[in-house]
Amino acid sequence: MNSVAFISAEACEDAFYAAFAACDIEQMMAVWVHDAPLVCIHPGSAPLTSRHAVEDSWREIFNAGGGVQFSLTEQKVMESQEVCVRYVHENIHHGPGLRSMAVVCATNVYVLENGSWRMCLHHASPGPAAPKAGDGRLH
Amino acid sequence: MNSVAFISAEACEDAFYAAFAACDIEQMMAVWVHDAPLVCIHPGSAPLTSRHAVEDSWREIFNAGGGVQFSLTEQKVMESQEVCVRYVHENIHHGPGLRSMAVVCATNVYVLENGSWRMCLHHASPGPAAPKAGDGRLH
Repeated sequence: MNSVAFISAEACEDAFYAAFAACDIEQMMAVWVHDAPLVCIHPGSAPLTSRHAVEDSWREIFNAGGGVQFSLTEQKVMESQEVCVRYVHENIHHGPGLRSMAVVCATNVYVLENGSWRMCLHHASPGPAAPKAGDGRLH
Repeated sequence: MNSVAFISAEACEDAFYAAFAACDIEQMMAVWVHDAPLVCIHPGSAPLTSRHAVEDSWREIFNAGGGVQFSLTEQKVMESQEVCVRYVHENIHHGPGLRSMAVVCATNVYVLENGSWRMCLHHASPGPAAPKAGDGRLH
């Protein structure tokens, strides 16, 4: 598993969403950094900061659900030789016949670790119900 | 305004939360990058990707509310010579007598721009209602 290397942040991101859609826990954990600090925030949940906790969370998600498909709009915020920050607007199709849709905003950060790009941060949160930003936000 | 320089990501982050608490729009906009791409996501809202939209959003927040105080737990996720990624757990005290509290999870990314650290990404989302991560998350 550890031998999988990603030549770019984009390749790592592709693998992340492919692993998510396929409920592939090995590929999912190959995406994440192995030794560097990491943070994973699922929508509305507390941050997870260890590989063990992150792996447990994805196992739980994969066991509970499965069968999701993504329509993604991806945007690079910044990139250097060793860090890449990307914003992803996730339309998640789920449920019977994939007819339900949830909107999630995600910030993904990738770093170069031992010659491979890996994810070190995934912050996902509920997106706006409507296409436009709404009123009444806290901040 | 543009002459304000921050010698570290931490100094920039301090200025961000000070501007937020003080409803100081000039200091808030001094914190953000001037020419580089930026993303600002307020809880539950669509991402804002221009300085103009970001400034409008903070003006709206400052005009509507004011008088908040923060208890922050800050954690550096990664740092290089030109990028710093930080996770911040925000306890926001607000309302009459500052007796109400909201929990917000924030990812903040800072970059070195023309000799000063500036914020290029702020992703804030509703935190968990309870101290521990809950069940029933979408992902």
